Amino acid sequence: MSRAAKIAAKTDAGRFFEDFHLGEELVHATPRTVTSGDVALYIALTGSRFALQSSDPFARACGFERAPLDDLLTFHLVFGKTVPDISLNAVANLGYADGCFGAPVYPGDTLTAVSRVIGLRENSNRKSGIVHVRTQGRNQRGESVVDYVRWVMVRKRDEASPAPAPVAPDLADHVSADRLIALSALDFAHYDLALAGSPHVWESYAAGERIDHVDGVTIEEAEHMMAAHLYQNTARVHFNRHAQAADRGGRRLVYGGHVMSLARALSFNGLANAVKIAAINGGRHVNPTFAGDTLYAWSEILARWEIPGRCDVGALRVRTLAAKDRPCADFPDKDAGGNFDPSIVLELDYTVLMPRGT
Amino acid sequence: MSRAAKIAAKTDAGRFFEDFHLGEELVHATPRTVTSGDVALYIALTGSRFALQSSDPFARACGFERAPLDDLLTFHLVFGKTVPDISLNAVANLGYADGCFGAPVYPGDTLTAVSRVIGLRENSNRKSGIVHVRTQGRNQRGESVVDYVRWVMVRKRDEASPAPAPVAPDLADHVSADRLIALSALDFAHYDLALAGSPHVWESYAAGERIDHVDGVTIEEAEHMMAAHLYQNTARVHFNRHAQAADRGGRRLVYGGHVMSLARALSFNGLANAVKIAAINGGRHVNPTFAGDTLYAWSEILARWEIPGRCDVGALRVRTLAAKDRPCADFPDKDAGGNFDPSIVLELDYTVLMPRGT
Amino acid sequence: MSRAAKIAAKTDAGRFFEDFHLGEELVHATPRTVTSGDVALYIALTGSRFALQSSDPFARACGFERAPLDDLLTFHLVFGKTVPDISLNAVANLGYADGCFGAPVYPGDTLTAVSRVIGLRENSNRKSGIVHVRTQGRNQRGESVVDYVRWVMVRKRDEASPAPAPVAPDLADHVSADRLIALSALDFAHYDLALAGSPHVWESYAAGERIDHVDGVTIEEAEHMMAAHLYQNTARVHFNRHAQAADRGGRRLVYGGHVMSLARALSFNGLANAVKIAAINGGRHVNPTFAGDTLYAWSEILARWEIPGRCDVGALRVRTLAAKDRPCADFPDKDAGGNFDPSIVLELDYTVLMPRGT
Repeated sequence: MSRAAKIAAKTDAGRFFEDFHLGEELVHATPRTVTSGDVALYIALTGSRFALQSSDPFARACGFERAPLDDLLTFHLVFGKTVPDISLNAVANLGYADGCFGAPVYPGDTLTAVSRVIGLRENSNRKSGIVHVRTQGRNQRGESVVDYVRWVMVRKRDEASPAPAPVAPDLADHVSADRLIALSALDFAHYDLALAGSPHVWESYAAGERIDHVDGVTIEEAEHMMAAHLYQNTARVHFNRHAQAADRGGRRLVYGGHVMSLARALSFNGLANAVKIAAINGGRHVNPTFAGDTLYAWSEILARWEIPGRCDVGALRVRTLAAKDRPCADFPDKDAGGNFDPSIVLELDYTVLMPRGT
Repeated sequence: MSRAAKIAAKTDAGRFFEDFHLGEELVHATPRTVTSGDVALYIALTGSRFALQSSDPFARACGFERAPLDDLLTFHLVFGKTVPDISLNAVANLGYADGCFGAPVYPGDTLTAVSRVIGLRENSNRKSGIVHVRTQGRNQRGESVVDYVRWVMVRKRDEASPAPAPVAPDLADHVSADRLIALSALDFAHYDLALAGSPHVWESYAAGERIDHVDGVTIEEAEHMMAAHLYQNTARVHFNRHAQAADRGGRRLVYGGHVMSLARALSFNGLANAVKIAAINGGRHVNPTFAGDTLYAWSEILARWEIPGRCDVGALRVRTLAAKDRPCADFPDKDAGGNFDPSIVLELDYTVLMPRGT
Repeated sequence: MSRAAKIAAKTDAGRFFEDFHLGEELVHATPRTVTSGDVALYIALTGSRFALQSSDPFARACGFERAPLDDLLTFHLVFGKTVPDISLNAVANLGYADGCFGAPVYPGDTLTAVSRVIGLRENSNRKSGIVHVRTQGRNQRGESVVDYVRWVMVRKRDEASPAPAPVAPDLADHVSADRLIALSALDFAHYDLALAGSPHVWESYAAGERIDHVDGVTIEEAEHMMAAHLYQNTARVHFNRHAQAADRGGRRLVYGGHVMSLARALSFNGLANAVKIAAINGGRHVNPTFAGDTLYAWSEILARWEIPGRCDVGALRVRTLAAKDRPCADFPDKDAGGNFDPSIVLELDYTVLMPRGT
C-alpha cells in the first residue's frame, strides 16, 4: 500500500454502494450507556411533556421500573450509530418501515446496534443505488429495544462497477397488532389522567379524526446540532456551515429525527395520553428542514385497535405530518395528484398505546 | 357536539378569564422526576457557581443529604407546569409575591404542582381580567418545596360575559422571618468560605448597601428556548419565530424566569455566600427581554435579620435588578416619578440565608 | 475603608500582575460534583464518540469501574475553577505544558482545584507580565486527577509598581513515559476493536504519519457559551456581546478549551482507539475562534512508545492542529519562517494510550 493510501486508510470515508453486500451484517461502533443526562437534554431540545417519560412514580404506576426513555430518543441513539457505516455517502434518506419497539430502555442501560443488508438496487443512472438495511438496537442483555428497516440512496464509488442483482425486501404496510411487543411492559389499570394532562382516552378517538396540534416551535442551529451530537450521529450535512456555504447559505440540514421528535412533542397537545410508541409503520422526510424554520404539526387517526385480552390499553395507528412556517388548522396534505403541500417536511405513520376508559 | 367542536376539544386552547372560579383548585399535568441531568443543564444555561448546589460534600457539610437543586430551578419546574392551565392566554405575567421555599429538592425527587384561584378582577375595558393564583409545588412525599402567589392578566373569551365580584388577595409585603422554613434544613457551623468563593459573611453586609455584579451575559435564542423546554413551560411567546415575525422581527420573548436565573448567577460576584434562597418576597418583569440582549445586574441589601436561636446563619433581604445592554456600576433604578430606567427588565425582592462569621 | 471601597470590595475584579507572589498557593472556589448530566452535555456539545467514555460495559472491560469522564472534560472543569483567581485580567492565555492525568474521574466524584505560582516575569513595556501557575485538580479523596502548568499574560494594576525578580519555571518538552500514571488504571487485554470503531491499533501508527480528520464542525454562540458555563468558566470574553460590540461586532471569543474538545472529537475519525489521554505535553491557542467558524483538524504522530512490562497498551505522542474554515487534507502547518498558516487556531501536543495488536 502506498504511503498516501495507508494514511487515507486511517480515516473512514464511509461506504459506497459497491461496498454493501446482501445479507452482510454490520456491527456499529460506540456502545452507549444512556443516562438521566441524555433524558434531560432530550426534554430541553424537544419540550416533550409526556408523563410516562417524565416521572418515575407515574411510570411505576404503569408497570415500568422507572421512567423509560422516550421511544424516539432510543430510536435516535440506535440510528446515530448506523450513520458512519450506512449513510455517510447517502444522497438521501428515503424512508423507514416495519419499526418495532421492544424492551423499555432505562437510564443505565447500554445500547448497541447491528444492521443487516436486506435490499440492493442500482439506480438506472448507474451513479447510485438504493440500500435497504434492517437495524436492531439492543440493550446490555441482548434484548431488542427497537428493530426497523430504513433505506437510503448511496453514491457509487465508480459508475463503471457492476450492478448486483436487484433485491427489494417485502415490507408490510404496518406492524400488525400481534407484533406490538412493547405492550407486555405496561399496565394502564391505574393510569392517572389528570397528571397525564388530558381526559381523552383510547375510546375518545375515531378513525379518520384529524387533530391540529396548534403550537409552533422554531429550530435553532445550536439545538439541532446538539441533538445530532447527543445521538453521536456523524452525518456531515448537519454540522458544517463552511462546506454548505455555497449551496445553502451555510445553513445545515436538520437531522430528520429531530423533526420527528419535535412533531411528537407538539402532538402532546391533542394526544397527551399516547404515552408509548409501539411501532413505526413508515416514515419519510418529504422536504429538508433548516434552522430558522418553525414547525407545526397535525395528526390523523388511521385506525383504532383493541388489544385481545386487555381492557386497560388500546392501540391507535396515527399519521402525523409536520409543516414548516405554516399553521396546520386546515390540515395541509397531499393534493389530488399525490403531491404534498410544499410546507410538509415529515410524514410519520406510527402506532401508539393509550389507556382505555372504564 | 359538532365534528369541528369535537376535534377542537382534543387540543387545549388554554383558559380564558371566564374559565377561572374563585377557590377552584387546578391539578397541573406532567409530574417530573428531577435528575442530575436537569442540574447540569441549569448550570450550562445560567453559569451558576454557588457551592451548595455544585458539590455534594459541601452540601453535606451544610446539613443537606447532597447538593440540592438551585432554588430557582425548583421554582421554574413548578412554574412551568402551571402555564398550560393558567397563562396560555395571558396578556402579561404581572408579578410574584409571598413565595416560600420548603423542603430541599434532590435529584430523584418528583415534583407536582397544584394551584388555587385566590383573586379575580375584570379590567375596566372588559377585554381581560387579573387572575391571582397560589401555586404549591410538592415532592413525592407531599411536602411543599415552593409555595407562591402570582398574578397574570388573562384575555376574556367573550367581552360580553359577566364580570365576577372583584376579589384581590391580601398579600404581605414580604415573607416574615418566622416563615423561612428553608432554615431548618441547614447548618452553617462548618461552612467553608474559601471553597464558597468569598470571605463576605452575613455580618459583612449592611442595609442600604448596593453591589454591582459587574459581569454581563448575552442571551441566545437556543439557550432560552432550551431553558423553557427543560421546565416544560409551554408559553407560545418563547418558541415561535413564525408567529412573532410580524411584530417582533421573529424574536421570541425570553421566559422571565430565565432572566431571574441569569441575574441570580451574576449575583455570585458579590453575594457568593447567599447560597440559599428562602423566600421570594416579590418580583416583576419590568420590560421584555429578547435574544441578543446582554444582561447586567446589581443588588441592594434591603434588610438584615438575625435568626432567633441561630448563631450559624442570618438572613438578608435583597433586591436585585437586571438591566439589558447597560452596565450597572451606577445602579440604574426608578426615577423620582417612580418610573424604572428603560434598561431595567427585572426587579426581584427575595430573602437569602448566609453563614455568619464567628 | 471608604464606603465606595467597601462596596467595591464585595465584587471580585480579578487579580492583577502585582497580586501574584512566587510560591503562593491559591485555593479555587466552587467544588463540583460531576454527574452523568455533565457527561451528556459534553457529548451534545462536542459530538465525542470514544467508546471508553460512552459505555460502562466497555469501560469495565478496560479495567475501569464504569465509563470515566472524557479527559478534556476533567481538564475544563478544573481549568474553569482557576479563571476567577488567575486569568480574569489576562490579556492572553499563552500556553499549557507538563499536564498529567491521574485518577480516572467518574460521575459522583467531586473536583476541587489548587494552583501554585511558579513563575513571574514583567514584560518590558511594564504594562503586564507573565504568570506561570501549576494547577492541581483533585477528587474527593485528594488524589490528583490532572496536574498541569499554564501561563498567561496579566495586566498590571499600576505601571509604576516594582517588578519582581523574573522567574521562569523549567518545563520539560513532554511528559516522559514513566510519568504516565493514567496507565495504571487500564487493562486493554479485552479491548473490543469493532465496538470501538476502528481496526487501527498502536502498531498501525508510525512516527511522522499525518492524518486528516476530514470532517468539519461549525461553532454556535449558544454552544460555546453553554460549554464555558458548564465548566463554570467566568472569563468575560466568552459571554458578553454588549462589551464586545465595538471591536468584534458582538462576537464572543470561543473558550480555547472548547476548541481543544472539538478537535479531539473530530480526531475520532482516524484515532478512534486513542481512547485515553495520558498527558498534555504542550498546547497553545494560535488564533482566536469565533461563533460561525467551522473547525477542521489533522494530526501528526510525533512518537510511538512501548510501555515497559505491558503488552496490552502502547503510547503515541500526537500533535493535533485545528484550522478554521479550511479543510486539512494538505495538512496546513508552519511555514519555513516558523509562522503558522493563518487558518490554524490550535496546536496541541499530547500523549494517548492505545490498545496493542496481538
